[in-house]
Amino acid sequence: MTRQALVEAARGDRPLDLIIRGGRMVNVYTGEIARADIGIYGDRIAVVDFGGALGLTAREELDARGLIAVPGFVDTHVHIESTMVTPPNFARAVLPFGTTTVVIDPHEIGNVTGRAGVEYMLRASEGLPLRVFVTVPSSVPAVPRIETAGAAFDAADVAEMLTWPRVVGVAELMDYPGIVRQEPRTAAIAEAGLAAGKNLEGHAPLLTGRELAAYLAAGVDSEHESRTAAEMVEKMRLGMWVYGRENTFRRTAAYLADAVKTIPQPWNVALCTDDIDPADLLLNGHMDRGMRVLLDAGVDPAMVVRIATLNGAMRYGLNDLGAIAPGKRADIVLVESFTDFRAKIVLADGRVVAQDGQMVTAFADPAPPPLDNTVRIQPVSADTFRVRVPNAEGDVALKCIDIDPVRTTRLGDITLPFAGGECVYPLPDDVTILSVVPRHGQVHPPTLALLRGLPLRDGALATTVAHDSHNLIVAGRNPADMAAAVWEVARLGGGVALAVAGKIAATVRLPVAGLMSDVSVEEIAAEVRAFNKQARALGLGGASPVLAISSLALPVAPFVRITDRGVVDTLTQEFIAMDVRHTD
Amino acid sequence: MTRQALVEAARGDRPLDLIIRGGRMVNVYTGEIARADIGIYGDRIAVVDFGGALGLTAREELDARGLIAVPGFVDTHVHIESTMVTPPNFARAVLPFGTTTVVIDPHEIGNVTGRAGVEYMLRASEGLPLRVFVTVPSSVPAVPRIETAGAAFDAADVAEMLTWPRVVGVAELMDYPGIVRQEPRTAAIAEAGLAAGKNLEGHAPLLTGRELAAYLAAGVDSEHESRTAAEMVEKMRLGMWVYGRENTFRRTAAYLADAVKTIPQPWNVALCTDDIDPADLLLNGHMDRGMRVLLDAGVDPAMVVRIATLNGAMRYGLNDLGAIAPGKRADIVLVESFTDFRAKIVLADGRVVAQDGQMVTAFADPAPPPLDNTVRIQPVSADTFRVRVPNAEGDVALKCIDIDPVRTTRLGDITLPFAGGECVYPLPDDVTILSVVPRHGQVHPPTLALLRGLPLRDGALATTVAHDSHNLIVAGRNPADMAAAVWEVARLGGGVALAVAGKIAATVRLPVAGLMSDVSVEEIAAEVRAFNKQARALGLGGASPVLAISSLALPVAPFVRITDRGVVDTLTQEFIAMDVRHTD
Repeated sequence: MTRQALVEAARGDRPLDLIIRGGRMVNVYTGEIARADIGIYGDRIAVVDFGGALGLTAREELDARGLIAVPGFVDTHVHIESTMVTPPNFARAVLPFGTTTVVIDPHEIGNVTGRAGVEYMLRASEGLPLRVFVTVPSSVPAVPRIETAGAAFDAADVAEMLTWPRVVGVAELMDYPGIVRQEPRTAAIAEAGLAAGKNLEGHAPLLTGRELAAYLAAGVDSEHESRTAAEMVEKMRLGMWVYGRENTFRRTAAYLADAVKTIPQPWNVALCTDDIDPADLLLNGHMDRGMRVLLDAGVDPAMVVRIATLNGAMRYGLNDLGAIAPGKRADIVLVESFTDFRAKIVLADGRVVAQDGQMVTAFADPAPPPLDNTVRIQPVSADTFRVRVPNAEGDVALKCIDIDPVRTTRLGDITLPFAGGECVYPLPDDVTILSVVPRHGQVHPPTLALLRGLPLRDGALATTVAHDSHNLIVAGRNPADMAAAVWEVARLGGGVALAVAGKIAATVRLPVAGLMSDVSVEEIAAEVRAFNKQARALGLGGASPVLAISSLALPVAPFVRITDRGVVDTLTQEFIAMDVRHTD
Repeated sequence: MTRQALVEAARGDRPLDLIIRGGRMVNVYTGEIARADIGIYGDRIAVVDFGGALGLTAREELDARGLIAVPGFVDTHVHIESTMVTPPNFARAVLPFGTTTVVIDPHEIGNVTGRAGVEYMLRASEGLPLRVFVTVPSSVPAVPRIETAGAAFDAADVAEMLTWPRVVGVAELMDYPGIVRQEPRTAAIAEAGLAAGKNLEGHAPLLTGRELAAYLAAGVDSEHESRTAAEMVEKMRLGMWVYGRENTFRRTAAYLADAVKTIPQPWNVALCTDDIDPADLLLNGHMDRGMRVLLDAGVDPAMVVRIATLNGAMRYGLNDLGAIAPGKRADIVLVESFTDFRAKIVLADGRVVAQDGQMVTAFADPAPPPLDNTVRIQPVSADTFRVRVPNAEGDVALKCIDIDPVRTTRLGDITLPFAGGECVYPLPDDVTILSVVPRHGQVHPPTLALLRGLPLRDGALATTVAHDSHNLIVAGRNPADMAAAVWEVARLGGGVALAVAGKIAATVRLPVAGLMSDVSVEEIAAEVRAFNKQARALGLGGASPVLAISSLALPVAPFVRITDRGVVDTLTQEFIAMDVRHTD
């Protein structure tokens, strides 16, 4: 569509479709907050009248007295799969919170169904009122040598996907040691991104000094894993885009606030959500949540808005987005005040799509979700998960994985009583058996380890949400419940199951690649809440008990993780010889 | 080239090529000025050490004690032709002033030799230490209906040129009334730029209100013609990139300073030079000139640097440029202080290219300049330029063009004595005859008008530098000198000539399309200075007497101009019936 009609409307020779009249506006270009009438034609802003002198008229008016207009929020990094819904349902979930643009990394589904999964996420987000841009998963799997996913992307795969529409970069290069060391596969994926002229998105917790310089020198120039304000400031000074992240598991917007207040003229900062579970989303919001944190920490309101809108758009070269100005897309959020960034009215493409936290327009799903059962496991039984040491009797010293309340893991030593070559149940109070069951059709047997620190008192938790290669991970107090939970997850075609005393106590059904539901966010959130209630009764705490063990298979998180291939020291990326072996 | 060796150097496993040690650095990301050692490998920055804790070593060191490192300057809009040298000589001229990146609009040569001219500018700037990005001329000619250039670009031409390497946008859409009115050719050129995902560069002096909204709605979102700080502020608030401009003819950096100081959080501002004549360049500098103005006006030094570097790079999505950080191109300027932005040492691609205002590296010209004579005129004689009114005797009332000292032109009334149907010489003191001689092979006769206000006392000035369609413009006190000056310009193959009493008093030879010399900037500047000395002796003043009449054929400048087709009201773009007609 040419701009002709829009230009005519802007200059006054064609009626505007809509005026947002009488409110104030945050000007992300200048940091000013001023009275402004906003004239819209079609899906774009035609004219902004600061003084009221232009005398705008339109077919329709929106009374914005008492409201403040800000650009629709731009989420610079999000995995839709973490919210357990499909892209259209995700759109219906986040638009009411004012998020109108997201840059997604579909690496969860990519690890399960490969390119078909990435293609589905593109198809299913085509033409939504939520603008969905895509970064091509770089980490399928995160570290090929030490884990097996449902697919493996090499540089040629990534290069091809970089030519697909709406693709704006290579997604977080999580294997940061591989980048720093220039391991061939990882380095080649980064080079593919550079050759295509696309952003290289980063993931580099605690990286500093010359290793950080090396990561940047490789062309990776954004990051959302910083754990302190000081870490953020170091990265900002070196030109790295730092995304604050406020979600179910990690809350770094407060650090970002400190960093921004430290820096005289902050520039390369934005905001993202990364992973939010569905129940948490409905309760605490989306991008607005991080914005409230910045504001509460004393960051200037106009700067908060700039960080959540224009800066993210600029990072990705999305020149039509992130601002309210003539020619830009009419994605606008009206809020009541700066003390609460809750969206009162949300416009996307010039139309009101949500009001008072509810969608007010309907749209069809662009593509049906793939519902093939992706849980392709070999048969398991209680035997699969028994902790055995041939001929062991009495106390036996073993290695275990220690987990702390923020899910940092370390290698530990443990002594357990054995009888007849198998450990004696019940296990000590804070000890569970942890296993990764291959679920992508691999024929090798599950891995097995002892886990200390997970507060599960009884039963077993199994899930196909097992970052990032998404095999089936299970933790239990006894082998029988583990087997029961695993079978239930397989029967559901993916999801989460809690088994106690041989019975299924709770489930969350995630039939789309074992990661997402085919129902609305409200429905899946209800499932999650019910599940969490049961899980809490068994002792599991934290922000999201349903995901209590989902990160324990992630071999790029500190410091010890379990994959389908073995227990891994994630700093050296070497396997650790453990003393626990299943029977097979 | 992959990043592997760079990454190895960054992480410390390969020697750095160079360290800039002991100086301070302006951090354009944060606004901080801090001690920093800068490690370079190849053509990129590998590592920046703020604390000295990384203990960098390298093959070579550059002692930067007492110096301040800033990124190489990014000129967001420049016509190389105005400096009257070819691209390689332009590079040799501006690098010593710290300009390492320019975005050029080759629309002067484009108006003379069409695509071949644009191609030459690309070929001649390939691989220079100066990074030359290109915007595709949108205004060849500026207004087709009312002038004839040596070529005419339509939307299809522009679309094809947008696919050429190093092309980053559509150059200034000077026909802003055509954009606002959506005239088909101009609108289609803008649409071609949008379709290619490229920037649309603007040119919109005094545009305001709904017409400005219309220009922005068309997608044109930069501007460098603002004449007051208030005009700049209005445009900044509407999301338009405002480039301050400091050059031989227009000096708006001081207004930009006022605008920036008005705005709480300035964002969409950059700096450009547009047109600088060679003598002025050597005397007053390049981008550093505007930076000094901003600084003197009280803009924070780090913000001045950001405006002159990172902001321009961001505007064009040049993510590798405009900053000193790991992974970025090693284009670095070392200055002695902020009170004088004169470059002490300039590095491009990691190598010292200039020192103390002189180039210290040599490079070959990438392409020879085209030296075909482009001055294709029909024969002229003194008769061609006689002011005649059939049968006129005594005082005759005529129309004239009035020009004021800043070259704004208006329609005026004048009374001249006539005898035998021709006006009586000498003309009144401040009156000259003005003519545009078609020089692109057109067969129609020259246009003729009376000009009042040009302080030429005697003789005639003729030039092929006649913005923007670059016919041959001539102003003289008598028809004979006009003819002599025109013939001399034709003989030179283009350039400028001053004729007095039938003799050639001074020339500037511009054989490359009648716009550029094939000699160095020092040599052409010497020619220009010698010419200006003669021109001043004849009464011509102003910043650059050699260009005294060069803008009088520009039909997009206020308010009355003369083209090869006639005298034009530049607001209505309609011809004005004048009472002066040549004999033909």
